[in-house]
Amino acid sequence: MTKKVLMTLLEQKKYKSIHEVLSVYNPVDLAELLETLDAQNLAVVFRMIEKEKAAEVFAYMDNDQRQQLIDIFSMEETAELLDAMSADDAVDFLEDMPANVVTHLLEHIDWDTRSAINRLLQYPEDSAGSMMTVEFIELHRNMTVRQALDLIRKIGIDSETVYTCYVVERHKLEGIVTAKDLMIHDDTVTIAQLMTDQFICVHTTDDQEFVANQFRKYGLIAIPVVDSEGCIVGIVTFDDAIDVLTEETTEDMHKMAAMTSANEESYLKTSVFRHAKNRIVWLMILMFSATITGTIITRYEEAFATIPLLVSFIPMLMDTGGNCGSQSSTLIIRGLAVGELRFSDTLKIVWKEFRVAMLVSIALAAANGVRIFIMYHSAQMAIVIAASLILTVVVAKMVGCLLPIAAKKCRLDPAIMASPLITTIVDTCSIVIYFRIATIIFAL
Amino acid sequence: MTKKVLMTLLEQKKYKSIHEVLSVYNPVDLAELLETLDAQNLAVVFRMIEKEKAAEVFAYMDNDQRQQLIDIFSMEETAELLDAMSADDAVDFLEDMPANVVTHLLEHIDWDTRSAINRLLQYPEDSAGSMMTVEFIELHRNMTVRQALDLIRKIGIDSETVYTCYVVERHKLEGIVTAKDLMIHDDTVTIAQLMTDQFICVHTTDDQEFVANQFRKYGLIAIPVVDSEGCIVGIVTFDDAIDVLTEETTEDMHKMAAMTSANEESYLKTSVFRHAKNRIVWLMILMFSATITGTIITRYEEAFATIPLLVSFIPMLMDTGGNCGSQSSTLIIRGLAVGELRFSDTLKIVWKEFRVAMLVSIALAAANGVRIFIMYHSAQMAIVIAASLILTVVVAKMVGCLLPIAAKKCRLDPAIMASPLITTIVDTCSIVIYFRIATIIFAL
Repeated sequence: MTKKVLMTLLEQKKYKSIHEVLSVYNPVDLAELLETLDAQNLAVVFRMIEKEKAAEVFAYMDNDQRQQLIDIFSMEETAELLDAMSADDAVDFLEDMPANVVTHLLEHIDWDTRSAINRLLQYPEDSAGSMMTVEFIELHRNMTVRQALDLIRKIGIDSETVYTCYVVERHKLEGIVTAKDLMIHDDTVTIAQLMTDQFICVHTTDDQEFVANQFRKYGLIAIPVVDSEGCIVGIVTFDDAIDVLTEETTEDMHKMAAMTSANEESYLKTSVFRHAKNRIVWLMILMFSATITGTIITRYEEAFATIPLLVSFIPMLMDTGGNCGSQSSTLIIRGLAVGELRFSDTLKIVWKEFRVAMLVSIALAAANGVRIFIMYHSAQMAIVIAASLILTVVVAKMVGCLLPIAAKKCRLDPAIMASPLITTIVDTCSIVIYFRIATIIFAL
Repeated sequence: MTKKVLMTLLEQKKYKSIHEVLSVYNPVDLAELLETLDAQNLAVVFRMIEKEKAAEVFAYMDNDQRQQLIDIFSMEETAELLDAMSADDAVDFLEDMPANVVTHLLEHIDWDTRSAINRLLQYPEDSAGSMMTVEFIELHRNMTVRQALDLIRKIGIDSETVYTCYVVERHKLEGIVTAKDLMIHDDTVTIAQLMTDQFICVHTTDDQEFVANQFRKYGLIAIPVVDSEGCIVGIVTFDDAIDVLTEETTEDMHKMAAMTSANEESYLKTSVFRHAKNRIVWLMILMFSATITGTIITRYEEAFATIPLLVSFIPMLMDTGGNCGSQSSTLIIRGLAVGELRFSDTLKIVWKEFRVAMLVSIALAAANGVRIFIMYHSAQMAIVIAASLILTVVVAKMVGCLLPIAAKKCRLDPAIMASPLITTIVDTCSIVIYFRIATIIFAL
């Protein structure tokens, strides 16, 4: 159903047809369709979706639209919606609301839901605790397959949360049983016979990126989250892990391009002012840092007054240095993010980058040296450029690989040590190297 | 178990203990442990792992180590291993082997496995067909829950592949049933009553990035793959989708930093020569492109001979232009990759970037103009820099947002239109803008 069809049906008040069409829609697609509507129509259509599905659709909608709905809805209506949502989705929504609205809303909802939400709200943002859901299947060793299946039937929560069941004794997580095991074994087999005590789990305070990387590494559907005493408090499912991986990668990429991205809104939905705000800080810092390079150049005024050709190689040297530095920093930042590189690899990395820098710089120096010799018939100029290139590339690669590692060690995000910052640092180095060598070779 | 413990046990020939310890290990961790061994020990330990698990461990090992094992193994041993692997893992492995070895190996394995592998090998790399597994649960409308569960018990494939079952009539995919539905319904309920015909599916020829984005969007455990006639030929599971998302993102990041990354090996395992090869091509291209900017500078030799101070602002202008361009291109490249931006959004994007560019450039121009006026007491110089900054930033942001979109439209990877290439293009523009404005204002 397109927006046009929906609007026509709305005008003709064909509510029954709309309701029927909406009921076959996937919640994700429904949220996408609703995005195109204005606040009033949004509320009208949203109220036509059946309660369970509406809660799911709400979870997929963006903040602006949720706000529009909440403004129209009564407190009771909103509370009812929150009740129908899974606790982790409700928390995601509440985290973006003003504190007084949250308090007010929580007063209107079920005690059960409220306490679950309150508990989740306590965990630091971006921790395993804040991304987990508190709905999971808790089994005991002495239960039979039949009893386990009956329990699942009774609780009947989201399907991705029932495919791994957790064997718990006095709140302590003792093992896991997969839904597949329950499906293929006889009713009388006990959980103790089926369970395995070899499982991956995370702690409530673990960073969400670490949690997501565990999913990536082990290909799991869900991971149990335990507290400091080994008691299970929730589970994280793979779909939330995929969201975190996407978010974290986008955040890294934005940081690597000198942008702060505080919100999770999409490009088109972010306002021009917010876009400008996200970009201006680093641009200012980098612009003023780049004037250092400029100041250094003025020290060599005499050099390029004598040999004006020297100036024309500045862009090539600066760009090549910057590119070499970004290559190294990108490899290291990504390696650290996916957990492939560690601080203990520093020496290996430096040695590898040094050798790569030698190979690459000699190739670049040779190609450019020959070009300059042919074009300007100046062996001296060819030597100056070749030598500057080799030194610049080596410095660039060293700076490029070491800064992200150093940032990680200082508990900063390695992603800020990317192309823009590296380029500015390498620029200064390359200009100093270049004019030093030129001064020596041309005896200026 | 650390490498040291394992080596000691090996020396003492305590094979039984090793076998027992290995049997509780997770296949992923086991592959990681084996990575530290040399070829001979690797083969010894690998042979101690039980067959089913060994096949899984093999799938997680990297190419070099697999090659080492294959070199030691007899053809029959390798074939047996391939037989135990899931078809898609086997194909992943075979795709990296020389063609004659593949032919030879395929002759030694079961007809069933062979035909499955052969079929998968026909699909283009990076297509849904090549990432799918051919093992899935096929049900019929008139089956009961009991019959479905019996079938699952009999076939007993990997757990992530049984959680969605596919209702098929004459090979055509008619609907899906979740394992949860089978678990919570009575034995006598028919599949026709439980199935839904509202499902997401992909085509064999769909790009793997598109497939992975469907998982991201809908949060599914598995997606069925159909051929041009709507017949189901396989399924893709979420764990493979996570791998593809990681791979594609890493590839994008490498391309965005001017590197070609042909292989999927990790940073540390890639040889120095291969690293250099991946980096040198773009560095050469960009280095020679940057000389264009240099050539343009030489045209204004007189200008900076008269006012040497002009040279000192070159790095600041070039860097700021480059940074602004990378910000825009990164936002657009990422937006296109996650499917958030489309070609049809071009006008909206350009208008948004233009307004952001105006805001950002005016702020930068004001800050730098004031600084220059105070430092050099030259209103003319302040105006030249401010005007150049504004124009450069606008051009940079336009180039930065348009080139990735244009690349996408021309079926090129938008990721190559990133920081390094944009910087080189913007450099030339900024130098032309700068010296043009300077020539006019200073009446040179």
